[in-house]
Amino acid sequence: MYYGEKTEVLGKAVVHLTAVEISLDVDADRDGQVERNNPNKGSWMWGPNGHGAILLVNCDSEHTYGKRRDSERAEVSRVSDLKDMSPMVLRTSGPAKLPEGYKLTMHISQGDAESVRVFRTRSTAENLFYKSFVKDYPLVLGSEDLSKEVPYLGGNAEMNFYVEGLRFPDKDFEGLISISLSLLEPSSQGFPETPIFTDRVVFRVAPWIMTPNTLNPLEVFVCSTSDNYQFLKGMRRLVENSGYKLKVCHEYMNRGDRWMQDEIEFGYIDSPHQRFPVVLDSPRDGELQDFPYDVLLGPDFGYVTRTAYDEEVSSLDSFGNLEVSPPVIVNGKIYPLGRIIIGVAFPTATKGRNMTKVVQDFLWAQKVQEPIALFSDWLLVGHVDEFMTFVPAPDKKGFRLLLASPDAGYKLFRGLQNDGHGQAKMFDAEEEITVDEILSDDKLGAENNYVQSCIDWNRDVLKRELGLDDDDIIDLPILFHVMEENRAVAYYPDMVNMIVLGKNLGIPKPFGPKVDGRCALEAEMTSLMEGLGLSCTYIDDFASYHKLLGEVHCGSNVRREPFSFKWWNLEM
Amino acid sequence: MYYGEKTEVLGKAVVHLTAVEISLDVDADRDGQVERNNPNKGSWMWGPNGHGAILLVNCDSEHTYGKRRDSERAEVSRVSDLKDMSPMVLRTSGPAKLPEGYKLTMHISQGDAESVRVFRTRSTAENLFYKSFVKDYPLVLGSEDLSKEVPYLGGNAEMNFYVEGLRFPDKDFEGLISISLSLLEPSSQGFPETPIFTDRVVFRVAPWIMTPNTLNPLEVFVCSTSDNYQFLKGMRRLVENSGYKLKVCHEYMNRGDRWMQDEIEFGYIDSPHQRFPVVLDSPRDGELQDFPYDVLLGPDFGYVTRTAYDEEVSSLDSFGNLEVSPPVIVNGKIYPLGRIIIGVAFPTATKGRNMTKVVQDFLWAQKVQEPIALFSDWLLVGHVDEFMTFVPAPDKKGFRLLLASPDAGYKLFRGLQNDGHGQAKMFDAEEEITVDEILSDDKLGAENNYVQSCIDWNRDVLKRELGLDDDDIIDLPILFHVMEENRAVAYYPDMVNMIVLGKNLGIPKPFGPKVDGRCALEAEMTSLMEGLGLSCTYIDDFASYHKLLGEVHCGSNVRREPFSFKWWNLEM
Repeated sequence: MYYGEKTEVLGKAVVHLTAVEISLDVDADRDGQVERNNPNKGSWMWGPNGHGAILLVNCDSEHTYGKRRDSERAEVSRVSDLKDMSPMVLRTSGPAKLPEGYKLTMHISQGDAESVRVFRTRSTAENLFYKSFVKDYPLVLGSEDLSKEVPYLGGNAEMNFYVEGLRFPDKDFEGLISISLSLLEPSSQGFPETPIFTDRVVFRVAPWIMTPNTLNPLEVFVCSTSDNYQFLKGMRRLVENSGYKLKVCHEYMNRGDRWMQDEIEFGYIDSPHQRFPVVLDSPRDGELQDFPYDVLLGPDFGYVTRTAYDEEVSSLDSFGNLEVSPPVIVNGKIYPLGRIIIGVAFPTATKGRNMTKVVQDFLWAQKVQEPIALFSDWLLVGHVDEFMTFVPAPDKKGFRLLLASPDAGYKLFRGLQNDGHGQAKMFDAEEEITVDEILSDDKLGAENNYVQSCIDWNRDVLKRELGLDDDDIIDLPILFHVMEENRAVAYYPDMVNMIVLGKNLGIPKPFGPKVDGRCALEAEMTSLMEGLGLSCTYIDDFASYHKLLGEVHCGSNVRREPFSFKWWNLEM
Repeated sequence: MYYGEKTEVLGKAVVHLTAVEISLDVDADRDGQVERNNPNKGSWMWGPNGHGAILLVNCDSEHTYGKRRDSERAEVSRVSDLKDMSPMVLRTSGPAKLPEGYKLTMHISQGDAESVRVFRTRSTAENLFYKSFVKDYPLVLGSEDLSKEVPYLGGNAEMNFYVEGLRFPDKDFEGLISISLSLLEPSSQGFPETPIFTDRVVFRVAPWIMTPNTLNPLEVFVCSTSDNYQFLKGMRRLVENSGYKLKVCHEYMNRGDRWMQDEIEFGYIDSPHQRFPVVLDSPRDGELQDFPYDVLLGPDFGYVTRTAYDEEVSSLDSFGNLEVSPPVIVNGKIYPLGRIIIGVAFPTATKGRNMTKVVQDFLWAQKVQEPIALFSDWLLVGHVDEFMTFVPAPDKKGFRLLLASPDAGYKLFRGLQNDGHGQAKMFDAEEEITVDEILSDDKLGAENNYVQSCIDWNRDVLKRELGLDDDDIIDLPILFHVMEENRAVAYYPDMVNMIVLGKNLGIPKPFGPKVDGRCALEAEMTSLMEGLGLSCTYIDDFASYHKLLGEVHCGSNVRREPFSFKWWNLEM
């Protein structure tokens, strides 16, 4: 941009200023490099032909001790922290000095100031040494400084800036922020300067992204408690045999809270210059509540949470009730990052439990994995992972939806009876019950009819919202019984509540009726999964999880590889 | 939608229910008629090929006495109120009665309940008489009733519903709401019913739309005060000669507050079934504050306001600081409803006055007239109407932007001096000053240099954001002087602060230097406007407005015809 022409138009030219070229530059073409004066740098567009720079919320902590999220510090945490920020370059070309009274000012709006902070490299004129100290990166803009003069370096010069995101998109924040740089001209003495040229760049804050079961695992997390040795042993064997790392949260940290799935959800944030995992901490806040902040948060491991200030937190806020589908295409609309799935009260219910609005608002605001609300309040615990999961498949859409199905359960039990195995027993000695006894229990039958109709409702929603056909779905033989307030729990270990590690599944051992020494439920499950090339390991969680109304999935969590698909290439 | 197929799949068919056809219908094709089962009724898309029903905020008052906005009453205000609501029809076709235990339920989400209310016509079974009483339209859904059973009429039947919008789009509300209708199936005794079919419709709440100077006037509003007889006489002549209606707000109501422009902004809301004007009441709240609610609100005249709870209200919240451009095309992007223009502090200023965030958020959230922020805080009063306006033009873009221009003022004064009129006097006897005296006042010159640079900044923004060329802009000869805190006021009546009534302009009489008995400023102004076919009337507002730092535009307001362009046809 040339300045100079305009002063002549005004007829009061300051002739000594002939031409200054000024460009505030960002990585608007998203290739990881700050190009020169991209014509689209002042706006933001989705898609592979889109443009606009990207900002990360600096929600990790460069410090491991005395840690705080870096975004909570108004200075650069360490020099390594700069790589979590978006590079921005001020390129100037002109005389050695600006004429008397002219100056460069960088500025942001009041509204953006809560979402962004800008640092810069101290100029060589200020410090001739190699930039290796935090103090060499002074704060330029933040909530206390909406506008600040920046040095003009003279000649052909570049000054490096670092832009830090402070908050995720949410109901009241779309995620876009802009930064401006103005050349100010002195007015007559005693008057404020007025801007004669302004350059402006736009960033979008990267959304928090969840990872479905079809992505490769990196780490598996479980809790160790005084009573779960059997479970831990099974999990360790499964995880290590699958070639992944088992991370155990010990009792001094979990204080007996074994529900690793429920306290946290793993996700990540991504930009052309940097990417790292970010844990979403549930407002659930059981005894595990310190684990995500105290253990997970660290260098290149971010943390985000939402606090329910004036809402009641219920069991539906546990993240067993927050899942994500594999990539799907629905009526021609592509969801390359899948769709988030949560469970809520049924819409016609006059009252019911729900996921808190603060968490729902956060999830919807991320935009790139448009959420689906299922009906999970019919369950006593109320989590979607009690009746559904996804497993990878070599054919069709690349996955199958597995659904708990009382109908499939009764079909299997009736088959056993017809084949003369009515006296086959399930459970162990104290609680044993025969196939005949189960089939003759009319109350249990009525309860499972009701459960099936609740799951059918969700099946319809999932088919419609994920674009699934019936043969993308596998019904697993699982019975429920109904407890207080007409709410359901699994009758035997709920096999759908499994952990998916590539082609290896860790499934709650169902303790089903034994036929020729083999559990008929395991046999059916294994046969259904074998067809997809998946291998089943049955893990005994009966005493330490199932009896406490959870299973393998509730008691574990998996951090997975991010998508190779880049979220900014979505067509919105 | 046929129900029946599915029960067979489940293998526990309730055989007496063969087929019920159910469709919840709205005007999704926006032709004013509720069509049958539009395939797009469950989503909303902008544009002439778009779809999705439209809802009005029921912000008028059917009652003239003891009035409240209709949306503040949880019942239908009068039967005439139904025309402000969107029609919705439940069409059913099936047996005379639903089988035992089956029922229809209409429901909305908790989140939508603050934005929408649904009424219905009492069914003929309930009331055989003609529907002419409010009690014949019971409330179905609202903030207290998220879900309610609705009667199944049997055979081929239609039941009419009326949907009422309760709030405008805002920062935390995009404007979309959805309504669902479910057919519930009884479960085994003692269990809740479960839905077997759900139909869903989506509405968008109509935005509040402003009207630019290029639209035809309908009514002109002014205040009468103890000292503005001269001004009123001039305005009455102008308005009546132009063929419009002058409405005078008398002193018992205005209590001496004459700034009719500043308290309110006229706009309207529009849908395929109904349209009416809506006044936006400023948080300014001077002595005129009761006028919009007490006088304007009424049948088919809506009212909306925003309250600044934790922000300081400044002079920039007056609606002389809120204008709208005529339709423009900017780099190929069409704004068929123009763009809203507001004035704010200059972005590099470390502190300054601003328009309250609640009002800015409201304006941005309307979306269809994407706002532009100008720099107006350099003025003592701080309103954009002090330096700019739009007038209709027969050529080019159909309008011209008029800008106050100290440079044009000095050029005119220097021309007078060169032509030997340096001793020509302006103002009247007590305050008279010659052209020579003005030109020799260096302080005044410096002040006007500063003012020109402030206006030039805004000129650049307006050119860029409205896609204007230099020849779309006319510079008017107007001088300013600078008062406390470096803030400017007009030196003589500020001609750009005019009222535009079709081709007739009501302009503050400038009392400029007299040459051959004629005011040189009026002569210049008239000659500039004549070229556009516009006729100038100069109104003496010197004592009663100019001296109080306002002019003709500040002291008047115009309600205009709505756009013929429909907002839902915008491509977003």
